[in-house]
Order: sequence, then structure tokens, then C-alpha cells
Amino acid sequence: MGCAVEGEGDTVTARVLSDRPGEIIIESIEGDGGRLSLVASKNCVGIAAIETLKLLGQPSCGIALTLHKGLPLGSGMGSSAASAAAGAWAVNALFGEPLSKDALIVAGLAAEASVSGYHADNIAPALMGGFILIRSCSPLDIQRLPFPGDLWFVLVNPKFEAPTAQMRAVLPKEVPMSASIHNCAMGGSLVAGILQGDAALLGRALDSDLIVEPVRGPLIPGFADVKAAAKAAGAFGCTVSGAGPTCVAVVDDPQLGEAVAEAMSEAFVKYGKLEVNSARVAKLDQAGARLV
Amino acid sequence: MGCAVEGEGDTVTARVLSDRPGEIIIESIEGDGGRLSLVASKNCVGIAAIETLKLLGQPSCGIALTLHKGLPLGSGMGSSAASAAAGAWAVNALFGEPLSKDALIVAGLAAEASVSGYHADNIAPALMGGFILIRSCSPLDIQRLPFPGDLWFVLVNPKFEAPTAQMRAVLPKEVPMSASIHNCAMGGSLVAGILQGDAALLGRALDSDLIVEPVRGPLIPGFADVKAAAKAAGAFGCTVSGAGPTCVAVVDDPQLGEAVAEAMSEAFVKYGKLEVNSARVAKLDQAGARLV
Repeated sequence: MGCAVEGEGDTVTARVLSDRPGEIIIESIEGDGGRLSLVASKNCVGIAAIETLKLLGQPSCGIALTLHKGLPLGSGMGSSAASAAAGAWAVNALFGEPLSKDALIVAGLAAEASVSGYHADNIAPALMGGFILIRSCSPLDIQRLPFPGDLWFVLVNPKFEAPTAQMRAVLPKEVPMSASIHNCAMGGSLVAGILQGDAALLGRALDSDLIVEPVRGPLIPGFADVKAAAKAAGAFGCTVSGAGPTCVAVVDDPQLGEAVAEAMSEAFVKYGKLEVNSARVAKLDQAGARLV
Repeated sequence: MGCAVEGEGDTVTARVLSDRPGEIIIESIEGDGGRLSLVASKNCVGIAAIETLKLLGQPSCGIALTLHKGLPLGSGMGSSAASAAAGAWAVNALFGEPLSKDALIVAGLAAEASVSGYHADNIAPALMGGFILIRSCSPLDIQRLPFPGDLWFVLVNPKFEAPTAQMRAVLPKEVPMSASIHNCAMGGSLVAGILQGDAALLGRALDSDLIVEPVRGPLIPGFADVKAAAKAAGAFGCTVSGAGPTCVAVVDDPQLGEAVAEAMSEAFVKYGKLEVNSARVAKLDQAGARLV
């Protein structure tokens, strides 16, 4: 599962190319430091647009895209899914929104498969907003889980190039049965916390991962101290966001969130010897991809 | 997690022994075929009573118990937890119910530890009724999950002595990461199905276990056919109940449940070459342990 948060995000513009039927071109990308390819078939936003065009039944025009990255690459905040969601929604919007957001997930999945594997954890919430539980990717079986009440996330992104290959390689291929049972209980508790509007339970569930956090956390300088600082400052729980290095904590009050953000940032500086790119308190987003 | 169902259950009577302070004795056990020990410290009902007495602060009397087994032993329906819950509640009731049901879980846990390990999956719902999600056993962190609406389980118990040692030995010590992720999604979906009153989702989640069912199912003659028959007859999902050999299916209508029970029973006879002890359609129980 995954969720969307308000604030930073990617923006895509789409323009009809009447003389280039079926073609997707990327005209420009801003905010990526020149790291992303302008070749549509090699870029999340391009792939999502290509797949959306297929779903639309191959209209007799092409589409030119521009992408403005609002989310940093490789931050663990689902940057690629943000581009894919924006690309799919922009193309769909150009034709009057004939497809629903959940129908567009398959387009986003194709884009995600090219960068981080065939999973909907990021793309589904990026499109639909809120918490999305993915029971199965094929066939696609997803649930939008409403959180009754307000919820805030504290996202602290340190200036640290997370070693993506190592972050993936460190995941075990096999896990102890006891850890699997434990994490399954946490998965259930996460859902129970969300649906019952119990931010404290949600935090306890998020805070107690025995499989991924124990191997990825140590690769982020200062992580254990950041986690401890978040909880000492009043967060319900703290863990690695995605593959890191961003750390995320859960709070039910935005003012408390500011204090937690400060405590986490200080811990990154003091114990991780890392500068902090951004520290923000973001509300759970309910809208997902949208026309701006 | 686990849940309680209406119908069959164990019954305990408790009587004050004013001349034997602090002592628990078991006077008689019916319905166990002579298999259970009358020594209190070697029997679930006795251990639960002893632990409950400790929680009550060691009153200056002893207690005599009788146990009537309504649930068959080794059936995969939580027979030992039923005895433990009844024992704990009977002792507590004798003193005017000073302890709450969730306070008695620790007494039941001690009893369960002696037969099937330190887990609250059976004892918590046996005491409290409904669905109980156990995030953690120590410290105890449980959630009662209300199912909005009605829900029925089809429980078909074949005449088959499940090889308990083998049923346990067959569980892997390590599981593939992919299976762990999958089962975690099922755990979340199970909770989502319950809290949202979505019996179909609950069934899909229950039906798709990649860790336990694939190794335990084949030890129950005819299991694959029973599962297929349940679903062909309209059940939302079917799996092994506990360690088996009882199989459980989920339905949202009791009449449909009868048809599913018949289809499952026929499959046990035809493909498993097993007679059927009992086949019943049981409603989700909301009360748990109670005074009768």
C-alpha cells in the first residue's frame, strides 16, 4: 500500500500534435538536473503517456509533453510515480477525461515497471490520492481506504545520495517466518489504524517493520537517531520513506509536526553528519492527480 | 488475528472450595474421550484458572472445575482456547467479574503456551468475540474489529486425525520475500474487508495464502477439491481452519452457506475418501465467553 501527501509534486503539460498521429514526444524536462531521458519510451512520463494513448484507442494525433519535476529524484518519495501519474492524467485530460483514475493505473504500472518494478504502491495513490491498498496487481484489486479525520506526515529529506542498487540488493530474498508473521500483523494494523482513524495505531504499525527497515535503515547515516528523535518529539512512529533516504513520521497535529521535523532535522545533522534538503509537514492528500 | 463463531463451544462450571485456599482442581471432563489430563497444571482449563486466580490476587479459597467439551480436540477450531476462555471466565464470574475480558487474555495466553505456543489468535476472540487483531503479544496490543453486517462461516470437519506434529513441522522457518509481501497484502485486505463489511474482499484475502495453506492443505485428503467445491458453490473464499483438518469458507447468506457446506462435504467424501463429522453454517459470534 501507499498514500499521497499534499504539497510538492510533478507537473506535466500535454499538447496535441495533429501532424504526428500516435506519437509521444517530450519537449522539455525541468528540475531533474538533466538526469532524465527526453526519449519518451525511456522515461516514466513518456511511457505512461504512451500506455494511456493505447487505452484511449490510439487517437489520430500525437502528443507533446513537458515535465516539471517538483519531487526530487531518488528521494524515496515516489518521484517516478508522480511523473507517471501526471503524464497519464494529462493525456487523459487532453481528451476530456474519458478514463477513470483506476483505469489509468495500468498505464502507470508499465511506467513504474521500467524503473522500480511492477508494483502499484506509488502510482495508485499518486493517481487516486489517499491511502490505496493493493491486494493484487494482476488482476488489479485495489481498495481506497478512507482515513476519518486529519493526518499529517513529517518528511525529512537529507542531502544524501541513497545507493539505489545497494538499497535493493540489501533486501533479503527469504525472510524468517516469525518476521513475516510480525509484518503481516503490522500490515493489518496499518489498515485498522487508517480505517478507524487511529493515528497512534497507524504509527505503531509503521514503526515496527522487521524486514525492510532493519536492513535499509543502517544505510542511511543517522537513521536510528532520527527515528528516536521523531518519537521523542511526539511522533506516533517513524520509518524510511520508500527506499530512502527520506524519513517519514506520523503525527495528528501540524504544530507537533513542525517540532518533529525540527528534531529529525537536527538528528540528521548531529548524528548523520548530513545536511537537510527539505523538512516538511504534509497533510494526507485526498485528490491525487489533478488538472491545474 | 482470529474470530469467534456462534454455536458449539466448551462449558466450564466453577465452584468455591473454601477449605483449599489457592488450589484449583478439575473434578471431571466430559466429551474429550478421556484424552485430557485432570491435573490442573497440565490442562488448558486448569492453567487458565490458575492464572486467573493469580490475577484476582489469590483469594482465600480454592476452586473446583468441571469441563464439558463442545468442540472436538485437534480439529483446527481452537478447542484448547475455548477451554481456556471458559475456565478464565468461569473463575472470574465466581468472584463477580472483577476483571475485564481483555485483562484475562494473559491468563489464556499462559494456557495456550502449554499446547500451541504463545499466541492470542484463538484465546482473544474466544474471550471477547468478533474479530480480534493482535498487533503484539508482548506488550499485548489488540484491536476488536467490528464487521458491519452479517457474516457466516461454513465449517466442515472431516473424520481425519490431522497429524499435528507434521502439521507444525511442515511450516517453513523461512519464507520467500515475495510470499511474505503477498501475505502481508492479504492481512491488510482481510482487515479492510472486515472493517468495510466487504465479505467478498474478506473471502479473497482468506483464499489466497501463499505460506501456510500450500504446505498444510496437501496433508488434508481432498483439500484442493473441497476448496474448489466451496467456491464453485458460491463461497467468497475457503481455506484450512487453524492447523486443520476442518476447512472454513466465507459466505454472506446462511442459505447459500448450507449449499456450500453440502458441496464441501461431498468433496471430502468423493475426493478425500473421508467421512464428515460435522458441517455447519455458523454466524460470526459477537459475545465471546459468557455466563450460561
